[in-house]
This record gives sequence, structure tokens and C-alpha cells, in this order.
Amino acid sequence: MKVVVIGGVAAGPKTASRIRRLYDTADVTVVEKGEFLSYAGCGLPYYISGMVDCQEALRSTPTGAVRDGVFFRNVKDVHVMNHTEATAIDRENKRVTLKLESGETKNLDYDKLVLATGANSFIPPIPGVELENIYNLKDIHDADAIKETLAKHQALNAVIVGGGLIGVEVAEAFHEMGCRITVVEFLPNILPMMDPEMATLVEGHFEAHGVRIKTSTKVTAFEGNGKVEKVITDQGEIPADIVIMAVGVRPATQLAIDAGLEIGPTRAIAVNDRMQTSDPNIFAAGDCAEKTNIITGKPCYVPLGSTANKEGRVAANTICEVPDSFPGVLGSAICKIFDFSVGRTGLGEKEARDAGYDVVTCQAPAPDKPHFIPSAKLLYLKLIADRKTRKLLGAQATGMGVVDRRIDIAATAITTGMTVDQFAQLDLSYAPPFSPAMDNILAAANILRNKMDGHMEGISPSEVCAMLEEGKSFTFLDVRTPDELEQMRIEGAVHIPLGAVRRRMDELDKTKPVVAFCKISLRGYEAALILKQAGFTDVKVMDGGILMWPGELIRD
Amino acid sequence: MKVVVIGGVAAGPKTASRIRRLYDTADVTVVEKGEFLSYAGCGLPYYISGMVDCQEALRSTPTGAVRDGVFFRNVKDVHVMNHTEATAIDRENKRVTLKLESGETKNLDYDKLVLATGANSFIPPIPGVELENIYNLKDIHDADAIKETLAKHQALNAVIVGGGLIGVEVAEAFHEMGCRITVVEFLPNILPMMDPEMATLVEGHFEAHGVRIKTSTKVTAFEGNGKVEKVITDQGEIPADIVIMAVGVRPATQLAIDAGLEIGPTRAIAVNDRMQTSDPNIFAAGDCAEKTNIITGKPCYVPLGSTANKEGRVAANTICEVPDSFPGVLGSAICKIFDFSVGRTGLGEKEARDAGYDVVTCQAPAPDKPHFIPSAKLLYLKLIADRKTRKLLGAQATGMGVVDRRIDIAATAITTGMTVDQFAQLDLSYAPPFSPAMDNILAAANILRNKMDGHMEGISPSEVCAMLEEGKSFTFLDVRTPDELEQMRIEGAVHIPLGAVRRRMDELDKTKPVVAFCKISLRGYEAALILKQAGFTDVKVMDGGILMWPGELIRD
Repeated sequence: MKVVVIGGVAAGPKTASRIRRLYDTADVTVVEKGEFLSYAGCGLPYYISGMVDCQEALRSTPTGAVRDGVFFRNVKDVHVMNHTEATAIDRENKRVTLKLESGETKNLDYDKLVLATGANSFIPPIPGVELENIYNLKDIHDADAIKETLAKHQALNAVIVGGGLIGVEVAEAFHEMGCRITVVEFLPNILPMMDPEMATLVEGHFEAHGVRIKTSTKVTAFEGNGKVEKVITDQGEIPADIVIMAVGVRPATQLAIDAGLEIGPTRAIAVNDRMQTSDPNIFAAGDCAEKTNIITGKPCYVPLGSTANKEGRVAANTICEVPDSFPGVLGSAICKIFDFSVGRTGLGEKEARDAGYDVVTCQAPAPDKPHFIPSAKLLYLKLIADRKTRKLLGAQATGMGVVDRRIDIAATAITTGMTVDQFAQLDLSYAPPFSPAMDNILAAANILRNKMDGHMEGISPSEVCAMLEEGKSFTFLDVRTPDELEQMRIEGAVHIPLGAVRRRMDELDKTKPVVAFCKISLRGYEAALILKQAGFTDVKVMDGGILMWPGELIRD
Repeated sequence: MKVVVIGGVAAGPKTASRIRRLYDTADVTVVEKGEFLSYAGCGLPYYISGMVDCQEALRSTPTGAVRDGVFFRNVKDVHVMNHTEATAIDRENKRVTLKLESGETKNLDYDKLVLATGANSFIPPIPGVELENIYNLKDIHDADAIKETLAKHQALNAVIVGGGLIGVEVAEAFHEMGCRITVVEFLPNILPMMDPEMATLVEGHFEAHGVRIKTSTKVTAFEGNGKVEKVITDQGEIPADIVIMAVGVRPATQLAIDAGLEIGPTRAIAVNDRMQTSDPNIFAAGDCAEKTNIITGKPCYVPLGSTANKEGRVAANTICEVPDSFPGVLGSAICKIFDFSVGRTGLGEKEARDAGYDVVTCQAPAPDKPHFIPSAKLLYLKLIADRKTRKLLGAQATGMGVVDRRIDIAATAITTGMTVDQFAQLDLSYAPPFSPAMDNILAAANILRNKMDGHMEGISPSEVCAMLEEGKSFTFLDVRTPDELEQMRIEGAVHIPLGAVRRRMDELDKTKPVVAFCKISLRGYEAALILKQAGFTDVKVMDGGILMWPGELIRD
């Protein structure tokens, strides 16, 4: 069996190696346009920041063997042709046309063909985008060029266009290198994978580290004399010695389109759950292939190295007739921003509404370990669920607390269609150095259950903000302690500490709506129940408490 | 409705508060034998070590309110009677007899009664166990007494009898306090919740920190003049200035037994999944109540604060007629030992065999992040699955790598009966600062799949050890690099680096069995496949590689 794999970075080598392991007479060739094989593209921001000290580290095994052509031949018995571009697929004759480094062309026959052509950075046609020192971060060569420019100067003005995952990772890397950084994002928030209130927290964390975040801002031009000098936006100019374009990637599909393979609605190559394209002898895996959202069953495009690995294995198994299938993705994602982590899985609040769910959400900011453990850190957690089926749909988290663990527990639960009721009973590992006795994410699930069961009616901080601005008549009840009040408070709130609510509730007007809150709204919830039991009819709890307040805070 | 709750530490206050929140006319009384209410018993080792600086921290809310009687009255509207012992239950008349601090007795009527009597430390009848400075660690008073003894002396000889969770947590705490520590365990390994090879790794970590671990050792007496001076064991004497008895806890069931309530096979109070005892008006929750193992459906006894919280909520919901049920536990547990974490969930290897499963296991020691990330740490991971159903049954992990995340992902998957095939496709959150592109636990699941599908035959390091000792004829093939070999090697192994195996396989005898390995046996697996494809018939891979080798290692 002759297998040709086009693309040598992530899904390609994975597929090739596994086929060779499973099928002892398979003749496997990997064709790679660039120089480097099987490298950790996700590690590029850490190579720029200097955390990863040499590019060889990104393309070697844990024991230090560089994954080059010799490695693939000796260890994997896979033939590699790098500096070689696949230019056409002749499906009828099962033949690929290659353009070699020398310029010659060559044909290669296949029984099975695997497309692992990856993705290309999208470069919008903005005037001046061709100026020097404007980069994207697609491969090791880009990273080397960026590192060289950074090394030549001190305290550069860096502008990062695009506040998605790569944009924020590069922003952190540039911060490590001592740049003055501005991130320009066209949308109202950076990290569009996150719900707005979560993204806002991350923006605040960037600003606290001196990184300027300009959202709802459109880049209209780059100006400079040969080299870029400034970025022109609809909100003013920004001086720039270096610019990174990080406005997203597009699946590399030209070869597939030319060969007449089906392209999906996300513009990636359509595949079934065995990674077969519309031609059953041609497979696609990794960043060039379309994914399926596990929850909605709809096509989506989430290019990630973790998914590429899994898809490569499924493609190889299918080719070798080992039963396997790839169920799809949840859009799980995570990144580190200084000492913050930011992660998400499943559907966001708006995505869930758009998909037709009867959405219930909760905000649960709280320490991620018992408060008496000194390493406890604040974790902002949000869960999204469906009122009708009570299924968990999504989870988002940020803060200095442990994010990945909670996101991955949620991802596992969502994959199996767990309800919030089942979820809240999970027997997670517990000891004080790791988590509270009721882990944050289980406590959050219980808030959702309380809301669904009518024990608690929530209202988002931004809705309360709007009510105050509109001058609506309601009692905004802060039940925190006087000590906490001294640290920060919200203008217009009435203060009765939780312990005094039963005694002093006569001070409040029973006929007026009440919105109760505390630091995180756990005591706010208790206060609301006390008032409801006392005959107050319209009592809501402000989701997430003062920690999620988007407006002004008074600090004495 | 009158509710009486007996026990004020964990499940009791939780049940009481939730009932009061759900049921506005409920009259709720908590009866507590001791002084302190609602405290974090799991935090006691960290109070002893000084990490937690005062005992009030263990019994206060995150915002610093001490959870005493006044707090429960004002905030929760729950009446608390501490220093009060429940001495009898009159089920017919629904009445509890109480012995007050004054010595008087008093009767309290109930509509619903909740038993949250917790557990007692088991004190074995060893001669001399009544000597001074022999403690157990049941409550805050014990911790205060231990702290006082530690404060009086420097560099104490401390002996901890029992190497279970509490024993090892106390050992770590005492190490922080500068003691010379010996842990004495009757069984062949400490941490009986872990499989032997995982526990052995933890023992090595303790020894590396100067903590002596004496396993398979039975304490026969304590000797001393008033105060304990030495511990006598069947393996010799150990000098001791302080002794902690940590040989386990027993559910506190006397009250339930006297009342004729059904006791389960684990000697805890039998309950249904709504936490009702054999008397439908009497509930039990927390450490006094029996649990159900979610996988086997059989009764088990795993007393933990996390479970107590969940059971308390279910008891309260049932009493207030809010539908809820508690599905049981997986035996998830975790602890921190210096910079090691140790965790487990589900069934251990032996437990799984005893339960009748066709057990397949894998060992997957590997860095917990990409090797080029400096914070990557070694994680030893073991998975246990059933060959027939392909379901994941258990997970265990230890090392300096992140343990809790992997254990909790596995716990969530096992709860829903996920197969290893579904598990390996989980869309976990991925970025290099958090995990490898294929997370350790997904890679481990793929090893299990390879084994189940016949691509790989594993053999445990201890079996190989035995083969060497018995002088069996086989090729023990080390495929690591010469550099790795210089660091450490196993006597009797033949060395051919993986990259040279294809070229040099003629040096090996095709008719002899081969056991291949490398550092973690990933390359060992590749070597085995190469040899099998070349016609070697009996090729096994040593699970976990040299990192899991239990015998001698040669280091130059």
C-alpha cells in the first residue's frame, strides 16, 4: 500500500507514523513544503519570549532527538520530502504532482492520500501591510525574524493586530521582551471565544501589566518609510516599530479545491468522522479539515494541535482498517496571560442562545482552594446550561486560580451530555491544598440547580448597571461586612450585613424590587431567601457579586 | 416542621442550613457534642504545620465570620446546642434525648432527624497506647495538644502509626516542624488506596526527604515512663517523643445501633440514595453513613468532607421534597506530599480484578507539559480498564506533575461509563503552558487501546524483575540513547538505540522472547513493532519503562 501524506507539521507526521506502525508493508511518504517537520507550532510564542531557548527544542522529542528526515527514516521508516510542494492531485489516476526544491516536477502514485496542509495566516488587504517589520507568526522562520527584530532594538513599540489566542500569547511574549505593547481588536472584546464579561476581566489584567488594549478599533493603514512607523486606526494613530498580524487563520484548501474535493460551510475541507473527504481514498486531518461541534452537531472550524493529533490517529486507523471515529470538538481552548489563565469549553452564552437553548447561566467567582490555604487564588467561573434538558452546555474560567482543571472536568461532562444535577454530584479528588470541599465548579453547578428550581433568581451585573442608569426604583442591597464595604462599594447600594438582615429588614420597602449581592453573591443568595421568606415578592441576586461589577467602584 | 440534626461539623450544618433556606417555617436545631461547629477537619494537618496560622481560620467563612452559634442563629436561623450529646433516639415518639453541658437531660421532638455523627479515630488496643504524647488527630483540640507538644521541644522523634491519607499528611506537617519522622505501616505499602507501584514511588519521595518509611511493620507496644519514649515493633524499636495514631477511622454509629437502625456491611449506617436510613424519618449523611461505589454498585466506606457536603444537600432536599439523589462515590482521593501530589479515582488494579473485570492496565510516566516548557514536571500515570466493555475503571497518578486535573477528568469519565476509545478523543483544553498536545491521560488511554487491539503486549516491570531473577532466557532490549544509558541502566539489558533497531536487529535472536523498553516505553513500543514486523514472534513492552523499574539501577 502506497500512502502519500501532504503536510509535515502536526497531523501529517502523526498519520504517517501510525500507518507505518500498524501496516508493516505500507510505503509512506510525507511531502512538506517548508524545511521543518513535526514541530510544535503552538510553542512559537514561548520561543519568541525566550522561555524556549532554541528552535531545535520545538522540533525534537522529549529525549532530544531532532525530528528531521533522518529521524523519520530511521525511527519511523517513513520517507520524507521537505522543500517539496504538492501542486496537483490527479484523483482518477491516484497521483500527486510535486514541485521539488530544484524546480523539477515529479509524480507520486498513491493508494491513499492524506491532506494535512494546515492553515495560513490571514493577511487583510490593509494599505501598507507590506511594510518591513510587519509579521505574522505562522512558522519557525517568522519567529526567527521577529526575534531578530526584537534583538536589534530596546523598548520597541509593538502593535498586535488581533486579540485572539495567538494575539494575546504574542502580547505576553513581547511583554517579556520589554516592548511597549498595544493590542488592537476590531470586536468589542479581545478573546472572542470568551463571553464579554470574562474577556473584560482579561483586558483589565493586561492593562494592569501595562499592555494597552484597544477594542472596537479598526486598523485602516500602516505607515512608514520602508519600515513600519505607525498604525492608523479609526480611533487614532499608534506608534509602531513592529507589528504582528494575528487576525486569524484560514484552512489551506487550494489543493483540495483544485482537485474538486468538497469544501464545508466553514471553508475547510469537509470530512466524515473517519476523516475521509468526499473522495474515500483521500483523507484530511488537522488545521485544513472541518470539525463538528459535539453539542450542536454542526460544522465548525477550531484549528488546534491537540485536535490535529487525534484526527491524524483516526485517519491512520481508518486507512489501516482499525475501527475508529472522531466525534468532534467542543471548542475547548486555554491560554496563559501573565499569572492569569483563561479557558473555555462548549457553548458560550450567546452561542447557546443562538443554537436555540433555554439558557441559564451562573457566575461563581471564588477562591480556588479553602480560604485558609495561602496559595488559594481567585477563580472567576461561569457555567452555561439548558433549562429544558438541564444539560451543561459550556464553562468558562479566568483568574489566577486553577482554570484548566475545571474546564477539562466540564469538557468531559459536556461530551457525555451530563445534566447539572449529575455534574454537581461528581466525586472529584479533594484535599485542601487542591480545592475547596465543594469544588468551585460543583458549587457553580448547584447555583444553576437553585436557579432552575426557582430557589434563586439571578440578574446580571450589567443589567443592574442599566437599571441604575435608567433611575429605576429598586433596593440595591449590599449584605457584605463593614470591613469589606470600606475596601470598595457601589454607589447607590443600601448596606445591611447578612447577619443583621433578619433583624433590620423593616428598613426595606417590601413592595419594591430588591437586588441583593455580596462579594460573590453567596451571601446575597442567603439574604434573598431571608427576604422572600419574610414576604418580599420580587427579590433577585446579582450574579457573581461585586467581583463581577462592570461599573465604577468607590474605594476610600 | 421540626428538624433535629445530630452533629455540627460538616454534613450536619450543611443539611441544617439548606433545610432552613428551602423551608421557611422549618424549625432546625443542630446538636453538637463538642465545642466547635462547622470546621474544616481536613485542614488540621495544615494547622499543625503552621500553614494555617490560627484555628479560627478553620472555622470561619472566607470573609472571616466565625461559624459559631451566634453566626448560625443570625445568618442561618438555625438553633445550635453545642457541648450537648444526643444519648438516645425514641423512634416511636420521634424524640431525641440530650445530655446538656450541665449534666441535665432534655428531650427534643422531631419530625425529621438527621444523623451526622461523623467518625471516630480507631485506637487499637496496643500495650502502652495510653502513654502521654500519643495522640490521634480527630479535632481541633487534638491539633492544639499536638502543636503544644511540638512547640515545647526541638527536633523531636516522631512516629506516625499508619501510612494512610491522614498519616502521610501528618508526616509532611511534622517534617515542616523539624521532626525526625518514622511512618510505621502494617501493610506492605503506605497509602493502601494506591496500587503498590504507585505507593512505592511515594515512599521513595518520603525517604528522599529524610522521612523513614517502615512498611510490613507491626507495632507491638509503646514504652515510656509516663510519656512515650519508644515504639516497639516486630522489626525493632523506634525512639519516639511523640506518636500519632493514624490507623483509620470508624463511623460513629452507636446512637443508630441503639435505635435499631440498619447498619451496612461496612459498619456504617445504611442509607438509600436519598440519604434515608431504614427509618424514613431518620437520615444519615457524612462520615457516619455508608456510601455506594458507582462502578460496582456495592457498599463502601470512604469518609471525606467533599462527600459529606453533597450528602447533606441531598438529605436536606429530600426532607424539603426537592427531588434529588446521591449516586455514590468513586473513591477519589488526593494528597500533597512535599512537591509530590498523589491521587486516585475508581477501581485500583486489584480491586478491579476482584470485582471480576478482565483488567488491562497501562503505566504512562511522562512530562506533564511539552518538554520545551521549563515548568514541565514528571507525572506517573496509571490507567485501569476492562477489556470486555473497554470501559475506563480507574486512574492513579503521582509525581511533581499536575495530578488533580488528570484524576478529575478520569473521575468524570468513569462516572458516565466512558470507554477508553471515547476517552482518548476528549477535547481537553490545550496550550503548551498547561499540557502536551496529547495530554498524558489521553496518551495513556491510547496505550490501553493499543493493548486491547493487540498492537502492543505489555509486561509489568516487576514481572520482568522476576524473570531476570529466575534466570529466564529472553532478550531485555533497552532502546534509549547512549546519553541516557550513561545516566542509569539496568544490569542484563542489551542496548540498541531505537534509531538503529532496523539496521542492527540481526544481532538479536528471533526465536527468543524480547522485552523492549526505553525511559517511558514509548520508544520501547516502536521497537517492539519494528521487531514484530521483522518476524520476531514474542515481543513485549515493559510498562512505564525504566522510570517504573523497581529493582537496582546502575549509575556511573
